[in-house]
Amino acid sequence: MDIGVPSESLAHEHRVALTPGGVKALVAQGHRVFIQSGAGAAAGHSDDDYRVAGGVVAYARSEVFGRAELLLGVQAPHRDEYALFHPDQAVLAFWGLPAAHADDLRQLAGQQVTAVGLEVIEDDAGRAPALMAMSEIAGSLAVVVGAGLLLNEFGGKGILLTGAPGVPPANTVILGTGVLGQAAARAAVGLGAEVLMLDSDIGQLRLALHRLQRAVPTMIATAYNIERALAFADLVIASPAA
Amino acid sequence: MDIGVPSESLAHEHRVALTPGGVKALVAQGHRVFIQSGAGAAAGHSDDDYRVAGGVVAYARSEVFGRAELLLGVQAPHRDEYALFHPDQAVLAFWGLPAAHADDLRQLAGQQVTAVGLEVIEDDAGRAPALMAMSEIAGSLAVVVGAGLLLNEFGGKGILLTGAPGVPPANTVILGTGVLGQAAARAAVGLGAEVLMLDSDIGQLRLALHRLQRAVPTMIATAYNIERALAFADLVIASPAA
Amino acid sequence: MDIGVPSESLAHEHRVALTPGGVKALVAQGHRVFIQSGAGAAAGHSDDDYRVAGGVVAYARSEVFGRAELLLGVQAPHRDEYALFHPDQAVLAFWGLPAAHADDLRQLAGQQVTAVGLEVIEDDAGRAPALMAMSEIAGSLAVVVGAGLLLNEFGGKGILLTGAPGVPPANTVILGTGVLGQAAARAAVGLGAEVLMLDSDIGQLRLALHRLQRAVPTMIATAYNIERALAFADLVIASPAA
Amino acid sequence: MDIGVPSESLAHEHRVALTPGGVKALVAQGHRVFIQSGAGAAAGHSDDDYRVAGGVVAYARSEVFGRAELLLGVQAPHRDEYALFHPDQAVLAFWGLPAAHADDLRQLAGQQVTAVGLEVIEDDAGRAPALMAMSEIAGSLAVVVGAGLLLNEFGGKGILLTGAPGVPPANTVILGTGVLGQAAARAAVGLGAEVLMLDSDIGQLRLALHRLQRAVPTMIATAYNIERALAFADLVIASPAA
Amino acid sequence: MDIGVPSESLAHEHRVALTPGGVKALVAQGHRVFIQSGAGAAAGHSDDDYRVAGGVVAYARSEVFGRAELLLGVQAPHRDEYALFHPDQAVLAFWGLPAAHADDLRQLAGQQVTAVGLEVIEDDAGRAPALMAMSEIAGSLAVVVGAGLLLNEFGGKGILLTGAPGVPPANTVILGTGVLGQAAARAAVGLGAEVLMLDSDIGQLRLALHRLQRAVPTMIATAYNIERALAFADLVIASPAA
Amino acid sequence: MDIGVPSESLAHEHRVALTPGGVKALVAQGHRVFIQSGAGAAAGHSDDDYRVAGGVVAYARSEVFGRAELLLGVQAPHRDEYALFHPDQAVLAFWGLPAAHADDLRQLAGQQVTAVGLEVIEDDAGRAPALMAMSEIAGSLAVVVGAGLLLNEFGGKGILLTGAPGVPPANTVILGTGVLGQAAARAAVGLGAEVLMLDSDIGQLRLALHRLQRAVPTMIATAYNIERALAFADLVIASPAA
Repeated sequence: MDIGVPSESLAHEHRVALTPGGVKALVAQGHRVFIQSGAGAAAGHSDDDYRVAGGVVAYARSEVFGRAELLLGVQAPHRDEYALFHPDQAVLAFWGLPAAHADDLRQLAGQQVTAVGLEVIEDDAGRAPALMAMSEIAGSLAVVVGAGLLLNEFGGKGILLTGAPGVPPANTVILGTGVLGQAAARAAVGLGAEVLMLDSDIGQLRLALHRLQRAVPTMIATAYNIERALAFADLVIASPAA
Repeated sequence: MDIGVPSESLAHEHRVALTPGGVKALVAQGHRVFIQSGAGAAAGHSDDDYRVAGGVVAYARSEVFGRAELLLGVQAPHRDEYALFHPDQAVLAFWGLPAAHADDLRQLAGQQVTAVGLEVIEDDAGRAPALMAMSEIAGSLAVVVGAGLLLNEFGGKGILLTGAPGVPPANTVILGTGVLGQAAARAAVGLGAEVLMLDSDIGQLRLALHRLQRAVPTMIATAYNIERALAFADLVIASPAA
Repeated sequence: MDIGVPSESLAHEHRVALTPGGVKALVAQGHRVFIQSGAGAAAGHSDDDYRVAGGVVAYARSEVFGRAELLLGVQAPHRDEYALFHPDQAVLAFWGLPAAHADDLRQLAGQQVTAVGLEVIEDDAGRAPALMAMSEIAGSLAVVVGAGLLLNEFGGKGILLTGAPGVPPANTVILGTGVLGQAAARAAVGLGAEVLMLDSDIGQLRLALHRLQRAVPTMIATAYNIERALAFADLVIASPAA
Repeated sequence: MDIGVPSESLAHEHRVALTPGGVKALVAQGHRVFIQSGAGAAAGHSDDDYRVAGGVVAYARSEVFGRAELLLGVQAPHRDEYALFHPDQAVLAFWGLPAAHADDLRQLAGQQVTAVGLEVIEDDAGRAPALMAMSEIAGSLAVVVGAGLLLNEFGGKGILLTGAPGVPPANTVILGTGVLGQAAARAAVGLGAEVLMLDSDIGQLRLALHRLQRAVPTMIATAYNIERALAFADLVIASPAA
Repeated sequence: MDIGVPSESLAHEHRVALTPGGVKALVAQGHRVFIQSGAGAAAGHSDDDYRVAGGVVAYARSEVFGRAELLLGVQAPHRDEYALFHPDQAVLAFWGLPAAHADDLRQLAGQQVTAVGLEVIEDDAGRAPALMAMSEIAGSLAVVVGAGLLLNEFGGKGILLTGAPGVPPANTVILGTGVLGQAAARAAVGLGAEVLMLDSDIGQLRLALHRLQRAVPTMIATAYNIERALAFADLVIASPAA
Repeated sequence: MDIGVPSESLAHEHRVALTPGGVKALVAQGHRVFIQSGAGAAAGHSDDDYRVAGGVVAYARSEVFGRAELLLGVQAPHRDEYALFHPDQAVLAFWGLPAAHADDLRQLAGQQVTAVGLEVIEDDAGRAPALMAMSEIAGSLAVVVGAGLLLNEFGGKGILLTGAPGVPPANTVILGTGVLGQAAARAAVGLGAEVLMLDSDIGQLRLALHRLQRAVPTMIATAYNIERALAFADLVIASPAA
């Protein structure tokens, strides 16, 4: 199959849909991969890295769109570029489903383009592996970024998340203990923070405790408990679903 | 040497200065050991256990005092029994040094009796092994007993020290992080309690953290910090030195 | 909806079906909550705590029964009080199902009262959250109480569950590794006890090991193994299902 | 004693020599504390916080210098302000000893001012508690800041220090395993990084391993080993002494 | 039921299908158990051990085959011995299903013998407990044996799996993170090895991480990643399914 | 300085006194290093490895002895080779001090040769780093080798040191908790064994517990306790000093 990887067009989007390692794996299976020049630059992969891996670097965006039977992206292409699609093309990316505009989907259907949302792909156990990976990364990142924001250099209260002998660590409240919340709790506990986890689902709290591999205080996320928890919090990490 | 173990006379004193295993070890080295009948009963060792180990069970307290070159006790004998001592006898027990009555010591000196306080025996590194062992036991016990006192069955607030999913564990404040405080912190952390340790010596806090094998919040024990800590405490364990 | 919380009538029952926090959450959703005066006292919640949370404190038990569309209890009301129910009332409590007397249930049906057993409520995954919470608490409590019973002050053998340097900890045998057994094992391991877990279901043993987050010896619960295990046990915790 | 806390004059210095808690403790011991207005602002303590704690807020810097028998600072006052000192005054701050300019010290001696370097204060065990505290904080901070620098948002290679399932964490090399290196290793291991520690002193490596409470690979810091380690490192944290 | 346990005939097969404890349990339930003399010798169980447990030791192999309604083995009997079976006999052993020879199965069916493969027995959750137990043992054993093979006494590179202060531990690569791979990873991590786990299924990697109770680097098992991983490996443990 | 590394002459001695990395470090400091051809072969270092590192490979043993001002060995050269020494030469190796033959030492003194025993070199803290490194390695090795000896393939009782769900791990008794005993305990606990540590010095037991980072049962090494411990042991590791 001919596979295309256009560069991402959103500002601050440093990711790329396929690494050189991924290209190598696909080429080894007999596929051809067309990479738009510079597509991997922000993620640290040069055009040459992709060439060494067996990919074809294309300088024109239209060429990547034109040759690909399957287009891979992180963010779905913007509506302005739908004209570049051709019939029977499939486009795999985060399409923002199920919240995506019905108009967009109708137009794609009219163009005979198949849009596959990474966010709705499920494995046999009914889990969404692409979403889970993003949530795991987001949860860890939230702690790293939050630890920075607590420093007074960045306008924070001048609290060291880890604490030190004689100085208590930051009180960290995690609202929601799904994949993101668990990853955040793991990173915060690992750094030595005082962590309190709340969730409205006690079964989910129990599961999060088992996975955290450490006794961490938890509370049911009633309005009353959330209020009490936030009153003492130095850092709050709330997962979207919470 | 002839060694004597009278039974303890203090109420609630269940300990005994020598177990059958200890008797066996001493007899193997050529000593003779005289045990007052019933001395080990409260600690679960029968007269027969001592006989099997090679000891001699004496029914008269005066016989134990009379035959022993070395008397072993947990608590030092009461002043009323000093008349039972004989010259050149040594008495090894917790004498309550250095706070013991000067009068008592003077009288013993007059009787040519050598009193050795278990609490002042030091090893090569300057540590008092008998005191340390008592402190380790006291620290662990404090948590077990404290966990019971938190239950409303025993008049407590109805708090489970360990918490449960959705129910935070007891806030446990440890004042002083010497041997007793460290043992208490270890037991409380092991049960899943929220633990906060305070000590006026930051080097001691650092040492306690290294030994606890887990990141636990600590604070310098200023009056201000102690006040803040106690405001939220469900259980407070204070070591004598704190 | 109008919700009633009569005080519990069983001796030694210190629990209350609804905390002030729970009242607050229900009132915020538009319900009215009637609390019998003193219902929360044994659990540490005063009538005023409930009033502050938005509840109505009723001094007559009959008023609570009379006004409630939904009655909440820990223990189900005794048969002597069935006359207080009115048609279309629902009563949520531990009814002791499925072992409850068929007579009682027939009578309730005749009175058009709906009895809902907390013990048979299941979540989507088929687990009984109320039962699980009680089992988790019971398992932790068993260790705290058991640790006390081993002391000779309470008639025990004078064994410290945690041990100390040079003194081995108590040999603790856990029969059955369901929710109660797992909670007991976690508390016992946390205190430093020597723990051996037995279960007749090897899949359950494997799951308990994963959840315990520590390598702990296990044995299949054959009569032969149970006999061997008990021979060396200082403390045995058997879950009801075992 | 009359104690003065002038505001710090170095750019980016957010610390303050005394917190309101510290003021409270000193005032309780009978001292008077003069705080320059705004001295605690960057660290999150308002003038009012200091007043509530019993301190006196002074608006003129010269008043703080003038009244204090003991001046407290984080950074030592700049040479331009030596004229503000008066004879028999003591100034406690990080003076940068032993590398401080001999000229400065000579001048202070001439003015009969006693300069005490926080960095040379030692406890009974010969350790420098102020330096250790700074090193512990610096080591933890290095990991938090380093984790940020690895992100491509900040020009990094786009590596998540913690890794994720299927994505290995950052290879983190710690050069020197003194107080700073140990704190850095603890934070990095806690976040899930792959950590390799090097030190030229094998006794120090052994001690760091004991304190880290986890098996972490170590190497003697020969030129050859450092070279090999750096070849694969994503993040390098080198302590000053290394 | 009459149950028979012939001795195993394969070389290097030290296992036995039933221990004396198992015999005791079956006899207690009213069964009779016939053990071929010497069947347990290689596993450390004497004929007398079986007799004490209530079994009957038979000296003729034909007697065990002849009397048993149910034959138990580790390895299935060899084709040469099929003549010893009798109609309506059941034979429980590892039959190598589903890869077993169709000829063998047809012949057994013709003889009215029921062959039950231990490897296909499933519990309610669809897991194969006998296979899992063998995989857990194999995974742990692989590390113990592998640690030996790394020593130069046995022709290895002279690497200590555990490392030592100043000497990094062995780089250990686990291919496949099913039951065997998880057991191997647990043992290797426990010994202090540097472990990298690869699996082509990211959900399986995530599960293995949760069960390992420690942050361990993982990679998706693409050809590219496997190649990179093996380049630095001192020890590779590959599970059959990988 | 000119440094020589002759090959080791003892059978089963696979070690070499200097790795290529060590040679590189010494050459970088301006020394010359002469390696006997093949000296590193058993440890996995070829002559070329040493040449690349900057060493000089000498084919004649006499040349290495003749040119070196400092000779490095693992085992000290045998008496038969003393004639190869020359005055003012220093020989650094394990000389077996203080038990070495006085005759040998006298002869070396007569030849004006300085023998330095690796085993008696101490660091500032009075520890012997070379001995400690050997003991750490020996302790880990003892567990790896012991785990193999428990298998019935090697004549053992057929016990898996790690155990498995439903099968308890090996009872492992560690006699003596010095460096070797601690390393052995760490490896055995890491593999999941049941470990019991005995030492006659309670301070040493306490230290070993702190370093093990896990609660492990301990007993004072009285004859009585050792006897009880050995009665249930599957594997015993005794350190030389125990």
